[in-house]
Amino acid sequence: WRARKKEEVFLYIVTKWAFAFLTGFIIGAAALIINFSVENIAGAKWLVASSYMTSGRTMTAFAIFTALNTGLVFLGAAMTVYLAPSAAGSGVPESKAYLNGIDAPRILEPITMVVKLLGSICVVSAGLYLGKEGPLIHIGSCVAYFLGQGGSLRYHMNWRWLRVFKNDRDRRDLVTCGCAGGVAAAFRAPIGGVLFALEEVTSWWRSALLWRAFFTTAVVAVMLQLGKQFCAQGICGLFGEGGLIMFDISHAYGQFGLLDLFPVVILGVLGGILGSVFNKLNTRVTKCYIYWYLRKPPYVKVIHACLMAILTSACCFWLPFLVKCRPCPDLSDIPGYKCPTHGQTGNFKGFNCPAGQYNDLAGLFFATKDDAVRNLFSFKTYREYHYRSILVFFGVSFIFSLITYGIAVPSGLFIPLIINGASLGRLVGMIMTTTTGNKMDEGYFAVLGAAAFLGGTMRMTVSLCVILLELTNNMLMLPMIMLVLLIAKTVGDIFNSAIWEMYVRIKGYPILEAKPEPFMQQLTAKDAVTTSVVSLSPVEQVSTVLMVLRNTTHNAFPVIGESSTTGRKVFLGLVLRSHLLVLLKNKAFHYASSGSAENSKMLQFTDFAKPATGKSLKIEDIDLRPEEELEFINVRHITNGSPYTVLESASLAKAYTLFRDLGLRHLCVVPREPEEEPIIGVLTRHNFLHENLQNMFPYLMPKKQAAGKTILM
Amino acid sequence: WRARKKEEVFLYIVTKWAFAFLTGFIIGAAALIINFSVENIAGAKWLVASSYMTSGRTMTAFAIFTALNTGLVFLGAAMTVYLAPSAAGSGVPESKAYLNGIDAPRILEPITMVVKLLGSICVVSAGLYLGKEGPLIHIGSCVAYFLGQGGSLRYHMNWRWLRVFKNDRDRRDLVTCGCAGGVAAAFRAPIGGVLFALEEVTSWWRSALLWRAFFTTAVVAVMLQLGKQFCAQGICGLFGEGGLIMFDISHAYGQFGLLDLFPVVILGVLGGILGSVFNKLNTRVTKCYIYWYLRKPPYVKVIHACLMAILTSACCFWLPFLVKCRPCPDLSDIPGYKCPTHGQTGNFKGFNCPAGQYNDLAGLFFATKDDAVRNLFSFKTYREYHYRSILVFFGVSFIFSLITYGIAVPSGLFIPLIINGASLGRLVGMIMTTTTGNKMDEGYFAVLGAAAFLGGTMRMTVSLCVILLELTNNMLMLPMIMLVLLIAKTVGDIFNSAIWEMYVRIKGYPILEAKPEPFMQQLTAKDAVTTSVVSLSPVEQVSTVLMVLRNTTHNAFPVIGESSTTGRKVFLGLVLRSHLLVLLKNKAFHYASSGSAENSKMLQFTDFAKPATGKSLKIEDIDLRPEEELEFINVRHITNGSPYTVLESASLAKAYTLFRDLGLRHLCVVPREPEEEPIIGVLTRHNFLHENLQNMFPYLMPKKQAAGKTILM
Repeated sequence: WRARKKEEVFLYIVTKWAFAFLTGFIIGAAALIINFSVENIAGAKWLVASSYMTSGRTMTAFAIFTALNTGLVFLGAAMTVYLAPSAAGSGVPESKAYLNGIDAPRILEPITMVVKLLGSICVVSAGLYLGKEGPLIHIGSCVAYFLGQGGSLRYHMNWRWLRVFKNDRDRRDLVTCGCAGGVAAAFRAPIGGVLFALEEVTSWWRSALLWRAFFTTAVVAVMLQLGKQFCAQGICGLFGEGGLIMFDISHAYGQFGLLDLFPVVILGVLGGILGSVFNKLNTRVTKCYIYWYLRKPPYVKVIHACLMAILTSACCFWLPFLVKCRPCPDLSDIPGYKCPTHGQTGNFKGFNCPAGQYNDLAGLFFATKDDAVRNLFSFKTYREYHYRSILVFFGVSFIFSLITYGIAVPSGLFIPLIINGASLGRLVGMIMTTTTGNKMDEGYFAVLGAAAFLGGTMRMTVSLCVILLELTNNMLMLPMIMLVLLIAKTVGDIFNSAIWEMYVRIKGYPILEAKPEPFMQQLTAKDAVTTSVVSLSPVEQVSTVLMVLRNTTHNAFPVIGESSTTGRKVFLGLVLRSHLLVLLKNKAFHYASSGSAENSKMLQFTDFAKPATGKSLKIEDIDLRPEEELEFINVRHITNGSPYTVLESASLAKAYTLFRDLGLRHLCVVPREPEEEPIIGVLTRHNFLHENLQNMFPYLMPKKQAAGKTILM
Repeated sequence: WRARKKEEVFLYIVTKWAFAFLTGFIIGAAALIINFSVENIAGAKWLVASSYMTSGRTMTAFAIFTALNTGLVFLGAAMTVYLAPSAAGSGVPESKAYLNGIDAPRILEPITMVVKLLGSICVVSAGLYLGKEGPLIHIGSCVAYFLGQGGSLRYHMNWRWLRVFKNDRDRRDLVTCGCAGGVAAAFRAPIGGVLFALEEVTSWWRSALLWRAFFTTAVVAVMLQLGKQFCAQGICGLFGEGGLIMFDISHAYGQFGLLDLFPVVILGVLGGILGSVFNKLNTRVTKCYIYWYLRKPPYVKVIHACLMAILTSACCFWLPFLVKCRPCPDLSDIPGYKCPTHGQTGNFKGFNCPAGQYNDLAGLFFATKDDAVRNLFSFKTYREYHYRSILVFFGVSFIFSLITYGIAVPSGLFIPLIINGASLGRLVGMIMTTTTGNKMDEGYFAVLGAAAFLGGTMRMTVSLCVILLELTNNMLMLPMIMLVLLIAKTVGDIFNSAIWEMYVRIKGYPILEAKPEPFMQQLTAKDAVTTSVVSLSPVEQVSTVLMVLRNTTHNAFPVIGESSTTGRKVFLGLVLRSHLLVLLKNKAFHYASSGSAENSKMLQFTDFAKPATGKSLKIEDIDLRPEEELEFINVRHITNGSPYTVLESASLAKAYTLFRDLGLRHLCVVPREPEEEPIIGVLTRHNFLHENLQNMFPYLMPKKQAAGKTILM
């Protein structure tokens, strides 16, 4: 584009920013819709169930409660299974894969987005151990992908004027902004969103992108703030203060001394161990589900999801009956608390208890997941929970979050992990405050526990820290949260890798990590070449080109000509399959092999622009008359004359770095000595994949991959 | 290191983290020392001056006030000029240059660090329009550099066991952590520090580094917190609550409506315009100083600094007398405020006024810079300042910050910029609240004004935003701060580039920007080759090698051998000057040109590790007997057999991307046709520099460089 006119550059820039704005706007709207719907549906559900409870009709309450939950999950699961199977799960691995350069079909389609949105509303309202955060990130990516592609051909929504992004980089950048916006919308954490995209999702990052992602998340933040203020007037039904997830503890005590570091270290280690255990078990459960589903008809998935809903409802409803009612504490020094409460929110739930008493477990189980977290994080509510209650809650939450994530509905992991961590932290806090007389609040421990568990599973540091700070709106907790995250990540990395990485591997996305594997040092670039080179001459007969395109699946072909002086073979460059197809489609042929320009059509630069996914030409689309096949085609003008090359003797690690850091699709391996063939092979993503190299050179592999360890370096 | 033993890898990792910890620890200690000293010195100064004021001896107060300030500045300037001239200025451009791969001598030496620390204490206590933030960043870099090099040879402080980092990357990583730690210490903003290092300072970034930088800033944050709690017992003299810079406005009103966006946009535009004006004028003033100093003896710099101190003292002392005393407002609804106050802190300064009245300008001029900012940011103090007062303050601050930064003392730009911005914002806020009945607080506008001015000069977004949030401890302001930063940056980028970039250019550091210039598309890699190739054979006579090393300044030489089959020339790789010198120094020679291994010493891998700056071998160090010069040297084993290469016909932009993204020092240009010389040239940093290319191809340059515009892309 640098060669284009000033106006075009200006238009291009304006479009980029306009698209970033639009992305943020749509994500903000989607987040508001989800939150508004969930709060209203779930709120209504709790109100109905509670009213039956207070009137003593417990069984009726349970029946209605379970029926509503199951119905909602049925809707969500049916949509997912029959309309958009790729909408299942969180969508973070998918976004990550796309941004690593993988064009997986259908994962970012509009239908996926719609199902993700509606499905999320259903299953989150139904109270499954799932969050809406992961799906919002996926929705953000989908919105950005849709805009970046200029619509979608499959759904006849493509507008020519929208199609301004002609290359992968611009599209990828927009999807990065979309991811950041999704996180920002999920947690109301605009800075956390940018950092999440930077730390976890993208593979390439530029400073200019930082700025645009920041703009997107700012738009999202403003949207949410305005939506919240609009709803503060009370016209949004049950969607009010607690609506958008935010666990405000800004007025809490944030001082600490040297001695307080000890329980924090314990919490970090616990978070790291339990987080890696969670990673291990969760991925194993998901794998089981996948194998089990393989041989079953699709409706099995729907039934499975519904069973999960019934099980969850039963636990949430009946478990609180196991604990004894406790007398209400004196809450006069905490403004806004009352005891006991009934209905949707509140710390001290009345549930089945007489007036003046509360059921501590009901405040956790018989509430939305957001409220449960809020209750766990609550400060100054010393000894609100009994040991047994919090232990039961932790155990049940841990098991449910393990077995729920793999079912066929849109599901996020953040909220379940926060719940696990917060209950663990509260437990540790209770033990600490009793045995050591530690001055820190139990709520403080709950926040740190959430940080530890998240750090132990996701293995991020900076972005999680910022997200937690933005969620809790308390900067004074920063040093402790940092510490606990660092410890949890370090401990977790000893056992296995981050959960998203494990899911990327389960789903089989050929992601290239940022650093080469150590064994690549022992291989040369030549070793990784697997397929023999299929090359073209600068002027080829059409039939030859057709044959080459039909008989190979290569996406790039080296062009090899002859030196005008010595007559020896010279490597002229790479020509792309897609560009060859454009030439063939437009019949830009010559009569003679001399390649004279007569009769050849002039093609515009824009004709070669990369089309959106699903719109690219295929060899089957080419239909030529026999006499045309005898003509000649001059590929010289569409040859990339200076592709990136490595010497055959270069270490594979070096080639990997070049390939990965510059985001290449093809890397040519050239010989050291000029008398051989001028090119040895073309390396693509698959040549660098760990699994493929493992099959070729099994003896080089270490016995046991201590995953994640390389990240320490 | 991948080939090394497990224990060594473990030790290496432990060292990395230990160094990061040490860096954070030392930076935290340095920040505490600076803050403790400044608060005590400046506090004592204000107390003495105020006591004379209240007893009516105004002239004596002024004399003592000025004498103290001038004395302090004299100390700071004399240290800087005579001990470490490179300690002048902020040090951010220097850190940036080092992290871009420039080994400039002495900018990160221990003496620079010491002078920076002591000098900062002096000039900040003296009340010059300077901050201690930039110097703290420089101190952070110096600490990290010192540790990374394993001491410093110049000062006989080198310990062998400390020298574990054998390559530039490890050292650079540690300096990045140091920078992040410096920012964290300066603003008590650990996340902001990491982001500052990421957005502004580093040129290469890896996810693993993010984590370690985060660890460093966490250590700094814990240090500061502990130090503050230690001093809260009242044993640190005047160093108390206001000590570490933090403008806590966490309890302030953070809601906004759609209509409030209008004044925010105005503020952003104003900040962008005034910020770029500031950049232009400030760099011009600094250039004038530099030219002026060139022909003068060094003591002129000291006198200049002292004059500046006298001028600043006079303005700060006498200007408040120009305004009328105003009656105290009713402050009963704001806890902690009283009126009038005397001495060091407080919003409503009594100064020369009778009881019950206050002097609004004295609260800004006759206070430390931190207190002035705190007063400007103060909420609910509606109409505290008169239009005229705030206008005078803005004008004087603007002029002083313009003319002070270039003098020969350690100086930071953050605080002056925040003061300018905050007074501008307060002014706009006063106008807005009066004319439009806007509901937002004047203090809110002051914060946004500071953001706008910082954004307009520094052109950062994410890191500034986080730093401001951490400074003010109020998350609810986030969307507005984001918005104002984005607008200010966009507006500022129209006129000129960021202030650090301009200073990098003034200081002449050959920094390579992240993206190639557009005109590079029109050049090929061959065009940029300036010097003819000086190549070596695999086995070369010692005298030849000595001659080559003496007569060239190249740091790398291509090795060209002969093909064993065809006898034609083959490019074998690159050999580094430093490695050749190691061979020569160790006399690893052969008697015969066949290069048989007899008599040749075996050299260890570690002998070739890059020595610390100032310790590298020079050609003058080599002292050989004449008969040794006739022996032969085999460079085959020290040749890098697969250096990165580009084809001669590759566009220079492509070569630039390869060079910059992979952080290379040498890039070989190879011919397309094999019959020519096997290598055309070696490109280094200087071949890619804008200025050098401009001299070679003046016709390619655009008429007027609209700087900063490319960042928009």
